[in-house]
Amino acid sequence: MLTNVTVEDEGQIIRLAWADGASARFHAAWLRDNALDDRTRSPGNNQRLITVLDIPADTRIGEVSIAAGDLSLHFLPEDKTVRFPAGWLAAHVYDRDVRQQAGWTDETIHRWTRASMQNAIPRAGLAAAASHPSVLRDWLAAVHSYGFAVMDGLPAESGALLKVVDLFGYIRETNYGRWFEVRAEVNPNNLAYTNLGLQAHTDNPYRDPVPTLQVLACIENTVEGGESSVVDGFSVAAALQEEDPEGFRLLSSWPARFEYAGSAGVRLRSKRPMIELGPDGELIAIRFNNRSLAPVVDVPFDDMSAYYRAYRRFAELIEDPAFEVSFKLEAGQAFIVDNTRVMHARRAFSGSGKRWLQGCYADKDGLLSTLAALQENVKEAAE
Amino acid sequence: MLTNVTVEDEGQIIRLAWADGASARFHAAWLRDNALDDRTRSPGNNQRLITVLDIPADTRIGEVSIAAGDLSLHFLPEDKTVRFPAGWLAAHVYDRDVRQQAGWTDETIHRWTRASMQNAIPRAGLAAAASHPSVLRDWLAAVHSYGFAVMDGLPAESGALLKVVDLFGYIRETNYGRWFEVRAEVNPNNLAYTNLGLQAHTDNPYRDPVPTLQVLACIENTVEGGESSVVDGFSVAAALQEEDPEGFRLLSSWPARFEYAGSAGVRLRSKRPMIELGPDGELIAIRFNNRSLAPVVDVPFDDMSAYYRAYRRFAELIEDPAFEVSFKLEAGQAFIVDNTRVMHARRAFSGSGKRWLQGCYADKDGLLSTLAALQENVKEAAE
Repeated sequence: MLTNVTVEDEGQIIRLAWADGASARFHAAWLRDNALDDRTRSPGNNQRLITVLDIPADTRIGEVSIAAGDLSLHFLPEDKTVRFPAGWLAAHVYDRDVRQQAGWTDETIHRWTRASMQNAIPRAGLAAAASHPSVLRDWLAAVHSYGFAVMDGLPAESGALLKVVDLFGYIRETNYGRWFEVRAEVNPNNLAYTNLGLQAHTDNPYRDPVPTLQVLACIENTVEGGESSVVDGFSVAAALQEEDPEGFRLLSSWPARFEYAGSAGVRLRSKRPMIELGPDGELIAIRFNNRSLAPVVDVPFDDMSAYYRAYRRFAELIEDPAFEVSFKLEAGQAFIVDNTRVMHARRAFSGSGKRWLQGCYADKDGLLSTLAALQENVKEAAE
Repeated sequence: MLTNVTVEDEGQIIRLAWADGASARFHAAWLRDNALDDRTRSPGNNQRLITVLDIPADTRIGEVSIAAGDLSLHFLPEDKTVRFPAGWLAAHVYDRDVRQQAGWTDETIHRWTRASMQNAIPRAGLAAAASHPSVLRDWLAAVHSYGFAVMDGLPAESGALLKVVDLFGYIRETNYGRWFEVRAEVNPNNLAYTNLGLQAHTDNPYRDPVPTLQVLACIENTVEGGESSVVDGFSVAAALQEEDPEGFRLLSSWPARFEYAGSAGVRLRSKRPMIELGPDGELIAIRFNNRSLAPVVDVPFDDMSAYYRAYRRFAELIEDPAFEVSFKLEAGQAFIVDNTRVMHARRAFSGSGKRWLQGCYADKDGLLSTLAALQENVKEAAE
């Protein structure tokens, strides 16, 4: 509920006060572009009907008033009155200190280590997630907050992993297929298809855009070894930043290169940093894969020694058991990782048994959209 | 062919000279990590078999020699000798000035305007591209260099656009389906499905990762109007930077927000800048869509007026006919755009005819991989 509004700077700016004591300024041009009326936004699909060029360059605010706690603004020279709910304005305040330290993440992202996560692995059953929206919502929320989750109760059969993706989004098909087999092969075109251990890594950093989600489902696992583990790349990056800010700066300030050329007709190459920050310094992605790192040629010569030291230290931290959460996938279990954040690894395996996993990629846009829609429905139902 | 090698800095660095007069330094740690021997890289799939932690921290170069023009290095303390071809080293030089002005792109990216492109639209026929690798290679190279191309000779039937994607990669399925209909509807959930004109835009900026390619194929087009046009976002961004460096800086330094909530169960949201630069300042993506721009809340209050002025100026330049290349898609024609660079628009249409297009998304990883493989094959065939 709004309690006060004043016009400043000849109508270029308004200053609002809410009943809870909060206050914030907004610009006339911003308010006009974000007007909620049905001439500005399509009532059917909420898309904006106007372009920024439809807004007069000299837009300013004339009369203002508060009615039933909400804001009413009269825009000049258009002679147009628009109403803004107090709660909508409070939810879209930008008059605050937006500058943060490089490597920040928002409060919905929870970093973890072995100590905090080994006994708290987020999990759900496939049947429950498919039939109870609140179960699915909580499982998806865990993927968003922690970057991984386990799902139990899949049929131990080929293609079952698609049922996981069907819960929230769409497969990202690649040259590996809609999904791919992960088992020891005689002439593997990828080291994943051997019984070797694999260092913690993100998948396919040589792809741009990188697949942002990966699902690995287990159909059979009776070997000795072959345990899975996950490492929170955001936790490790923060640890690197804490002990070596310059190393963090180097890995985030220069692109690495990744390449995969293991099959005929495939020459996948990317140029992206190991630690990716948004333009406002937000930590948005980790790329780490010893197998596919290509020669790094975009780091200045004078920084290369320090860059390699930082890469080595980053790798050491990733291997530190204090960051590793491990589990052995049983038949009928799957796990999902946010492939822009959480690295996964497997131990070497041997013995007379069989280890048969299937993997696939998907994307976070669909997952986060489904999560947001479920959260909105639950909130609406509670109101 | 190498002519000289010297060891510097107690084995930490070597300095090479080639027969053509070029010279460059390399670091011991970099060379060791990128060694080409079959203990370091898998001969079968070329993936690296070691991690950076397998390389001794005190790696240095002992003896060096040139044999048959190539380099032979002896690494200590491993007591390991590795050979590097002179050409490979020349292709991976990083001892150069890597710092460039923000907004740079590499020499394979050609910016264009109406004047340079209206009469030089890259195009190929589907049958020729499907049967002649050199035709496909040139068409894909045009998509890489210019960010768009036309394809003729599709069957004028539903689903024909999949034949275009089959040439190079994979569909990106989304909530809109594997592909979607673009025609006027009675209750559209998207303004694309009306007969309204659409300002030049990139598709789905509310998706992260954004679809990096879009194909639009025409099955029927007998209306008045409805012409398609494309605008090179990289050219427009460069023009903005030229006339208003501070505006370019603002649009590339702060994230925008995009949102689509036009269907039940769909709440797609992203936070990415309108002009995206890599960490080394490379111009890597444009996002521009008046319909789905959400309230921008990550720009500092004191910068918001200037940010909106820059956004407006960017929009004016995008609307400038000097940047617009236009064509009318006929039945059996399709065009592809690099959705991270080239905006597309359509004019409003009317009349008694019918306009039926189908659209789909795909990704650049597959396209660029196919292009690189074709280029390599052609090069090998010529050698």
